[in-house]
Amino acid sequence: MSNLDPLVVFTPSGKRGRFPVGTPVLTAARQLGVDLDSVCGGRGICSKCQITPSYGEFAKHGVTVAEDALSEWNAVEQRYDDKRGLAEGRRLGCQATVQSDVVIDVPPESQVHKQVVRKRAEAREITMEPATKLYYVEVTEPDMHDPSGDLERLQLALKDQWGLEDVTGDLRTLQMLQPALRKGKWKVTCAVHRDAQEDTAHVMQVWPGYYEGSVYGLAIDLGSTTVAAHLCDLQTGEVVASSGIMNPQIRFGEDLMSRVSYSMMNPGGDVEMTRAVQEAMNALVVQVSAEAQIDRELIVEAVLVGNPVMHHLFLGIDPVELGQAPFALASSGAVSLWATEVNMQMHPAARLYILPCIAGHVGADAAAVALSEAPYRSEELVLIVDVGTNAEIILGDKNKVLACSSPTGPAFEGAQISSGQRAAPGAIENVRIDPITKEPRFKVIGSDLWSDEEGFAEATLSSGITGICGSGIIEAIAEMRLAGLVDASGLIGSAEQTGSARNIVDGRTHSYVLHDSSAEGGPLITVTNGDIRAIQLAKAALYAGARLLMDKMEVDTVDRVTLAGAFGAHISPKHAMVLGMIPDCPLDHVVSAGNAAGTGARIALLNISARREIEQVVHDIYKIETAIEPRFQEHFVNASNIPHASDPFPLLNGIVDIPVVSFNTKQSEAGGRRRRRR
Amino acid sequence: MSNLDPLVVFTPSGKRGRFPVGTPVLTAARQLGVDLDSVCGGRGICSKCQITPSYGEFAKHGVTVAEDALSEWNAVEQRYDDKRGLAEGRRLGCQATVQSDVVIDVPPESQVHKQVVRKRAEAREITMEPATKLYYVEVTEPDMHDPSGDLERLQLALKDQWGLEDVTGDLRTLQMLQPALRKGKWKVTCAVHRDAQEDTAHVMQVWPGYYEGSVYGLAIDLGSTTVAAHLCDLQTGEVVASSGIMNPQIRFGEDLMSRVSYSMMNPGGDVEMTRAVQEAMNALVVQVSAEAQIDRELIVEAVLVGNPVMHHLFLGIDPVELGQAPFALASSGAVSLWATEVNMQMHPAARLYILPCIAGHVGADAAAVALSEAPYRSEELVLIVDVGTNAEIILGDKNKVLACSSPTGPAFEGAQISSGQRAAPGAIENVRIDPITKEPRFKVIGSDLWSDEEGFAEATLSSGITGICGSGIIEAIAEMRLAGLVDASGLIGSAEQTGSARNIVDGRTHSYVLHDSSAEGGPLITVTNGDIRAIQLAKAALYAGARLLMDKMEVDTVDRVTLAGAFGAHISPKHAMVLGMIPDCPLDHVVSAGNAAGTGARIALLNISARREIEQVVHDIYKIETAIEPRFQEHFVNASNIPHASDPFPLLNGIVDIPVVSFNTKQSEAGGRRRRRR
Repeated sequence: MSNLDPLVVFTPSGKRGRFPVGTPVLTAARQLGVDLDSVCGGRGICSKCQITPSYGEFAKHGVTVAEDALSEWNAVEQRYDDKRGLAEGRRLGCQATVQSDVVIDVPPESQVHKQVVRKRAEAREITMEPATKLYYVEVTEPDMHDPSGDLERLQLALKDQWGLEDVTGDLRTLQMLQPALRKGKWKVTCAVHRDAQEDTAHVMQVWPGYYEGSVYGLAIDLGSTTVAAHLCDLQTGEVVASSGIMNPQIRFGEDLMSRVSYSMMNPGGDVEMTRAVQEAMNALVVQVSAEAQIDRELIVEAVLVGNPVMHHLFLGIDPVELGQAPFALASSGAVSLWATEVNMQMHPAARLYILPCIAGHVGADAAAVALSEAPYRSEELVLIVDVGTNAEIILGDKNKVLACSSPTGPAFEGAQISSGQRAAPGAIENVRIDPITKEPRFKVIGSDLWSDEEGFAEATLSSGITGICGSGIIEAIAEMRLAGLVDASGLIGSAEQTGSARNIVDGRTHSYVLHDSSAEGGPLITVTNGDIRAIQLAKAALYAGARLLMDKMEVDTVDRVTLAGAFGAHISPKHAMVLGMIPDCPLDHVVSAGNAAGTGARIALLNISARREIEQVVHDIYKIETAIEPRFQEHFVNASNIPHASDPFPLLNGIVDIPVVSFNTKQSEAGGRRRRRR
Repeated sequence: MSNLDPLVVFTPSGKRGRFPVGTPVLTAARQLGVDLDSVCGGRGICSKCQITPSYGEFAKHGVTVAEDALSEWNAVEQRYDDKRGLAEGRRLGCQATVQSDVVIDVPPESQVHKQVVRKRAEAREITMEPATKLYYVEVTEPDMHDPSGDLERLQLALKDQWGLEDVTGDLRTLQMLQPALRKGKWKVTCAVHRDAQEDTAHVMQVWPGYYEGSVYGLAIDLGSTTVAAHLCDLQTGEVVASSGIMNPQIRFGEDLMSRVSYSMMNPGGDVEMTRAVQEAMNALVVQVSAEAQIDRELIVEAVLVGNPVMHHLFLGIDPVELGQAPFALASSGAVSLWATEVNMQMHPAARLYILPCIAGHVGADAAAVALSEAPYRSEELVLIVDVGTNAEIILGDKNKVLACSSPTGPAFEGAQISSGQRAAPGAIENVRIDPITKEPRFKVIGSDLWSDEEGFAEATLSSGITGICGSGIIEAIAEMRLAGLVDASGLIGSAEQTGSARNIVDGRTHSYVLHDSSAEGGPLITVTNGDIRAIQLAKAALYAGARLLMDKMEVDTVDRVTLAGAFGAHISPKHAMVLGMIPDCPLDHVVSAGNAAGTGARIALLNISARREIEQVVHDIYKIETAIEPRFQEHFVNASNIPHASDPFPLLNGIVDIPVVSFNTKQSEAGGRRRRRR
């Protein structure tokens, strides 16, 4: 490298250096540490090293690039272009050589550590750094003068040509290696898996010659109700198929604790449940690989997240300890194992990585949410709530992260609600009540129309209007409160008190009629005072958990609230706040993260460093056990009002106007606007 | 530690130090790095730390030991003595505390790195350092304030109480851990396996409380004809059972190359042979565990050695490449895998370690011979010969080791011999011929009597006299040569030329009648000129291989010859030398090492450092391929005479007198006494 050598500037990195005339662009990139991909190691086969030279004057870089700054288009590039097509202006970095000063752009798809696009603006980037990667190598032929094994010469090639040290071969590799080497004329493509936890690397597959295909990984979110999986291309990061399946363990119990007690009451019950979920997992593997039209043996690894009970049952560990204090996990750390150990039928040497659990009630799914939302990297104080049968709650910023679980029960999922049902076609999921007329309108799952819009009847003909789901009941109660149909203590007023004929007498209390098709033999869908009581208990538990973490953090407000999970994706932030589910926060700072647990699994699948990261984060998280915190009970008791009595909601008050009504003749409303006592 | 503290001297190590009054002997031993065993970590449970205090005057150590130098016999010791018995004078090192100056002997069985006794004086010691060891630990109970998993608290206990870092738990451990901890009241015994190759450690089994039993390992010598196994106690090193089984692959071909060609000719033939040998291996596991009366799940690891073809077929690798130049091994390195990967039914998480192969024809069995005989540690130059269908030959000393394989063919095993048979009852195995009368006498396998001794007929009644085995034909030919019945070129003289009526006409040549029972309908056992020709080829190949290595080493003599293998155990050194199988060497420097390959496997099983050692040694061995060495052909051609023409045998000449005869009318004997031309 001399001052007379041409200057090469790479964008977007800005890395620059001088290289002798004739240096391949790929070589220059490697020497400068520029992130330019290659599977074939510069042999003009894989085309991963595509670059775009720029020509003309670049004042910013102080370079003028001549038209002939790179060598002429060559036969290898022509052959590739004829065969696969090369975009206008693109060159192969291993073929084009430097002739004079040049500015070279590395397009996103040519970067080794390419970014995976995510839709949400505030979401963290996913940088590709998968555990399993492909390497094309040329292996020395055997020689009687130096009787080393074929595996040892492959290891040498991986070391010399790719700098990979201490790569071992498992038994299947040994079995397939000799024919592959001979068929490929001593050129093979290897899939090498690196295990971050054990710090080892294995050749898990060998293809003769250059392998044109890809390898895949599965990100699995094992929920109590559904098992969802994303099949990802491990070279591009792209999700090539997504699928879900019901968790067949539901037949042993709807919620987690009923499954734990099934295991306690029935000897061998845990084994039955383990078998059921492992079988479902294989059905899911078949489903996603069919959808992506790939052989399932190309799925070379998987990452799984789930709550502690699902985690234990899937691994064949009796969850009995999770059903009783002190809720001891068999292992809280990340688990790395062969997929075959849990009977998963993918690549025979596929590895399965399971994220660490945070505590006995806060599982690998919560760890995945933490990985996806990365509160530990945040400048702002963020509260993350993942609502299910239990709510997992995380509060933190880059200085400190706290986590707990709160026993909300299944009311938010539509259970324990008189007209409640699972979120399925026919379920009411959105509700609005006119504060003047007290008349409702609603939407049901399966249609985008409101019930007062034209065509609604036709649109809901097939599903019917069958009940109300979790997000529906929350909106209904919040709207009832805003319309003055319910008071702060949760009592539904009479027709007389509210001026609405929909408030009907129901035993010793009242109910609000949301939809009545009983005349046509259909259901009468009401919100009862019992429904409101169930939601009050659930939301008080949720709020008390969040509030407990805020106490521990010694704060009264949070900067941002993230609602995670399928439920979080459908809930209306405004209604959640009216109900007092979550602490006061500017409404535009309340976001839904969708299936953040699934996203966390995908991040850990695509980026091996993220595994180390979340293991460290989980280790450092302050775990709060609500069951043994006296303050939790205190917050719980104070949080049952709508909104509750213990905290101020100044931000909420700027958005909605909550009427002051009281239907309990014995006492007046405690009021949501009073300053907090403390 | 002050000068006024009592002085503690340990024997045999001689380590010494001063310790405060009241220090337990085990603690003193640990602080001084004295090799004193303990499984329970000083809790008075395991009794592995037994020591013997000595009393009186010790001028050598400058110490006078009072009767009360150690604390009084305590209740824990009394309980152990009542329950199991403690030998006279023994104390438990964890209970007895230092009171004044004392000399303490650590008996061999209380040493961690105890020596395993071997019969042969020149054999290397085996020091106990097994990969799998037992550790008793007390685990912290779970606590809701610190929700770590049970595995994590077990890992902490192993680290704090035993200094074991980074021990992981496999899935089975996780599955059994929680019940074991609770049943053992948070005290458990763990079997921890350390993998030297991957530098990892796994908890593979957990027992509630203190586990009184042991764990076992299997040392396997997988031969083409027989599979032999020694079951060893991994705590004491003791061989608790030994067993052998026929290799069922024999039905696919007697020798290695016929099995390779079976695989080449029959698609799937390798799979059939793999299944057969894996099934036999399991039968062997059943056999040895029944013999030792242990559950086979207590066999926690195995070490296997075998020639490259056996090695590949056992691992399910098609051996086709080993049947043709350049004889490429799938892997020449050591292989470490789960026993389940080769369908071995022992402990479900048992590991299998296979020694490295030296070259395409020189396998893990030869590596095991090298480990057992350790030429690389020898001051003397030692030649090691392991004779089978191929002869593996190792020559070296601490400066340099060479190895090769020589294609002796199966003649030494009794094949290709007119009256030849396997070494089995009824086979002639020793022969003596009177040089005056030319009359033979012999022994057959199954009897200790010579054929001219009283009772021989009765003793051989059941087996009969059926043929002649490998060692028998060597002695027969050597004795024929010494008796002047055969000339140096290998020609058998006529009755007239030799004066023996036993030399009968057999086609165009002559044969010597060793035993004739044809009158009673039995066999006529002769040594034909064809037999001598076959042995001449085999011994010329063997000698040429040894001689080639000597050329490479630039020496004309060796200090010691070791005959390994079953054949080596039965061969007579004198006759081998008369025949010219091995180079000239003082007869008392020729020893049989017995089943050195099996011993090497046992060393690698009992001592994990020996695995690293042999991997390095095999890496450093100079591998010579006889097929491409022109000197090999030259030596081979020159080595067919008996003894052969190319080398002097001055040492042999001091022992035997080989007559100068020639039965070939065309030329005179070349003579074995001529000085070497070079």
